Amino acid sequence: MSIKIGLLGFGTVASGIPFLLQENGQKIEEAAKDKLEIAKVLVKDDAEKERLVAAGHAYNFVTDVDAILSDDDIQIVVELMGRIEPAKTFITKALEAGKHVVSANKDLIATHGKELIALAQEKGLAFYYEAAVAGGIPILRTLANSLTSDKVTRILGVLNGTSNFMMTKMVDEGWTYDAALAEAQRLGYAESDPTNDVEGIDAAYKAVILSQFGFGMTIDFEQVDHQGISTITPDDVAVAQELGYVIKLVGDIRETATGISAEVSPTFLPKDHPLASVNDVMNAVFVESIGIGESMYYGPGAGQKPTATSVTADIVRIARRLSDNTVGKPFNEFSRETRLADASDVKSHYYFAITTPDEKGQLLRLAELFNAEDISFEQVLQQKASDNQARVVIITHSMSKTQLAHITDKLSAISDMTLLNTFKVLGE
Amino acid sequence: MSIKIGLLGFGTVASGIPFLLQENGQKIEEAAKDKLEIAKVLVKDDAEKERLVAAGHAYNFVTDVDAILSDDDIQIVVELMGRIEPAKTFITKALEAGKHVVSANKDLIATHGKELIALAQEKGLAFYYEAAVAGGIPILRTLANSLTSDKVTRILGVLNGTSNFMMTKMVDEGWTYDAALAEAQRLGYAESDPTNDVEGIDAAYKAVILSQFGFGMTIDFEQVDHQGISTITPDDVAVAQELGYVIKLVGDIRETATGISAEVSPTFLPKDHPLASVNDVMNAVFVESIGIGESMYYGPGAGQKPTATSVTADIVRIARRLSDNTVGKPFNEFSRETRLADASDVKSHYYFAITTPDEKGQLLRLAELFNAEDISFEQVLQQKASDNQARVVIITHSMSKTQLAHITDKLSAISDMTLLNTFKVLGE
Repeated sequence: MSIKIGLLGFGTVASGIPFLLQENGQKIEEAAKDKLEIAKVLVKDDAEKERLVAAGHAYNFVTDVDAILSDDDIQIVVELMGRIEPAKTFITKALEAGKHVVSANKDLIATHGKELIALAQEKGLAFYYEAAVAGGIPILRTLANSLTSDKVTRILGVLNGTSNFMMTKMVDEGWTYDAALAEAQRLGYAESDPTNDVEGIDAAYKAVILSQFGFGMTIDFEQVDHQGISTITPDDVAVAQELGYVIKLVGDIRETATGISAEVSPTFLPKDHPLASVNDVMNAVFVESIGIGESMYYGPGAGQKPTATSVTADIVRIARRLSDNTVGKPFNEFSRETRLADASDVKSHYYFAITTPDEKGQLLRLAELFNAEDISFEQVLQQKASDNQARVVIITHSMSKTQLAHITDKLSAISDMTLLNTFKVLGE
Repeated sequence: MSIKIGLLGFGTVASGIPFLLQENGQKIEEAAKDKLEIAKVLVKDDAEKERLVAAGHAYNFVTDVDAILSDDDIQIVVELMGRIEPAKTFITKALEAGKHVVSANKDLIATHGKELIALAQEKGLAFYYEAAVAGGIPILRTLANSLTSDKVTRILGVLNGTSNFMMTKMVDEGWTYDAALAEAQRLGYAESDPTNDVEGIDAAYKAVILSQFGFGMTIDFEQVDHQGISTITPDDVAVAQELGYVIKLVGDIRETATGISAEVSPTFLPKDHPLASVNDVMNAVFVESIGIGESMYYGPGAGQKPTATSVTADIVRIARRLSDNTVGKPFNEFSRETRLADASDVKSHYYFAITTPDEKGQLLRLAELFNAEDISFEQVLQQKASDNQARVVIITHSMSKTQLAHITDKLSAISDMTLLNTFKVLGE
C-alpha cells in the first residue's frame, strides 16, 4: 500500500517534490513508514496538461479539482497554487472531504488561517504549512516541538529574500533602491509589481504566523504595522555604517507587559548581531527566550527545492501520524488569549534623519522638541546637506511608539525642517 | 495525576529545570498534557543533601539510586551527572527498571550510546538526549523530524564553546593560545585540565552523535580524527585574516562516494561563511543538503538554562508520547549500514606554514615536492621569518587526505625545513 497524494498546482515548488521523492526516496519512505505516491495533479486547463506531458511529466493530470476531492484513495492534498482564491475554496473542500492538507500559502494562512485551522480541527485532520514561513528553514515545527519548554520573548526575522537581496546590494555596494530593484527584477527575485516584497507585506504575513507559533497568540494581519524599504537612501545606509549598523528589513514580534506587538520595518542592526550577516536572498529567524537565550535559524527563504523540502517534511509527518494513529492534532498547539501591547509599552531606539536650515541654533530647536516629548539623544551627527541646508541625524535612547507618533507629528508640522526618514534601531 | 521524574544529579543544569517549570509552567503542562513533578533527586551523600536543603531546595533528596529505580511512580529518569560511570550503570538500570531516560551526557552517548539505545529499543522505552549536542540548539530533533525529507551531504559545526571563545580572542584581538586559555579558565569556561575542549575531543563526541542523526551512520569515536587549537599561532591567525579567512575549530562530517568521514580540526573559514561570525561561547551547526541547500542552527552550546531547556523539551516529548501511546520509538530512526570514506576520497584545500632557509630556490623545492604528489598551489605567500629563515605559506587546491599524509611525511623528512602547521581550508 502507499499513501496517495493529490497536488493542486504544478509550478516551481510542486515540481521539486518528485525530485526529493526520487533522490531521497528510501529515507523518506522509511520515515513516512509508507510509500508516498503522487496520484493526481490539478492543472489549470488542457493546454497546461499537454505542455507538461510534452515536457515529460508522467503524472495523472486533471483539470477539475473534484477528480481529486472525490477520489477516496487520496489522503493528502497539497496546495501549491498560491494567492487566496481558488486556493481557499479548494483547501476548504479538501478538508470537508476528509483529506489532510499541506500548504505553502502564507498569504492565505496569514489572512484566513483561523477558519481553515478550525475546520481541520473540527474534522480531526492535519493542516500543516511549514513552508509558509522562511521557505526551507524548519522554523515552525522547531517552535512547536523543541521550544515547548521555553518561553519566547521576542522574534526578529529577516523574512523576505527579495528585499534582503536588495538591502544587501544597497549596504555592501552602495546601490540605490531603484538600481537594487531593477537587478532583483532582472534576476527574477522581484515581480514586476514588487509591492508585497518591498513594502513588508510578505514579511508581515510571516509575522502573523510566527506570532501564533512563538507566542500562542493570533495577531491579525491588519494589526502588523509594516514599513517598506523604498524610502531608504544611500545617505541612510552610509550613516548607519558609520555608526556601526547594517540596515535590513526586519520582522519584530515581542511580548511586553501589556501584550504582543508585531511589526515589519527597516531596522538598524548592530553589525555584530547574528542577523546583520544574513545576506542576499537568505532568511533567518532570531529567537530570544528565557531558556535558550538567543538562537537563530538560517536558510533559504524561497526557491524550488528548499520549499519542496519543507512541504515534503509536512507530508512525511502526516504519513507518520497516520501510521501512529495520532493524526489530527493542530500543527501549533500553543494558544493563549490574544492581547495586543499598548503603544506606550513598545519601546525601541530610533533613528531620525532631518534636514534643517543651515543656521545657528537648529540643533537646540531639535533638542527642545525631543526633550518636550521626554526623548533623549544617544548619538547626534550634523552634516552640511547643501548650500543652505544641514542634515541632522539623531539616534535616540529607548522611546515608545506613542512618543514616536508625537514627535513625528511635531516634526512634520515644522515648516523649515523636513523629516526624511525614521527607522527603528536595535539596541545593544 | 502528574508525571513523576527522578533526577540523577543536582548540579548546574539540573537546577535550571525547576526554573523552567516555574517560569513557564503553564505552557509546559499544556504541551506535556500533564503536570511534571520532580519526585526524587539523587545526590552524592548526606553532606550534599544537607547543603542543598540549607540552600532552600525543597526536593526529596536521596543518596541511593535504588530509591529512584524501585519507585514505580517514577516514569522518567533524567541523568545529569556527566562522565561515564556511574552514569552508564544508572541509565542501564533505569532502562531495565522500565523507565524512560533523558540525558545530556555526550561523552557517554558518543562512546556507549549504541548499547544504551539498543536496550531502550528492546524495552520499548524512550531515550532522548537533545542537550548532548550544542546544548541549547534544538539540532538533533530538527534533524530527526524536519530534515527527514532531505538528504544531508555535509555537516560543519562550531561545537565547542570554550575553544570558540578562545579562538574569538585569538582572531579578534590577536591573543596567544596561552593568554586565551588563561582567560577562559579565569571565566570558568575551561577546566583546569582543558584537554577535552581544546584538543577537539568534546567536539568529536558531538560529531559522533551528529553523524547518526544527519547520515544514519554510527561512526565510532575512535574513527573521528581530531586536531586541537593549541598549536595555532598569532602568525597563522594573521595570515588567515590577510587571505580573507577566520580560523575556528570545526567539526566536519560528510558523505563521499565511498562513505562518511568525520573529523574535528582548526579550519580556515571564508570570512563571509555563516560559521565565520559565530563568536565567543556560541555554537552553530551548518547543514548542507540536496533539498534545503544551506541552513544553519545557532545558539548557546552550554550553560544552565539553555541545556535545561533542551532537557525539558525531551521530558515534554516523552510525556506527550505517553499520552499519545506512541512512546518508545528511537530518538533517531534514520539508520543505514555504516561505511567509512576512503582517505583518497576525502578532499579539502589545505594551508601549510613552513619555515625554509632564506636562500634562493626554496619555493622551487617546495613546488617540486608538492607537484610530485600531484598537489597544486592556489595561493603562496613568502615572508622573512628571521635573519636566515623564510616563512612560506601555501594554500593548496583541493587534495585528498592520502595526499595530505604523503606530503606531510615528505616535508617532515627534510632537515632544513620545518612544517609549522597544516590546517584545512574551506573552499568557496
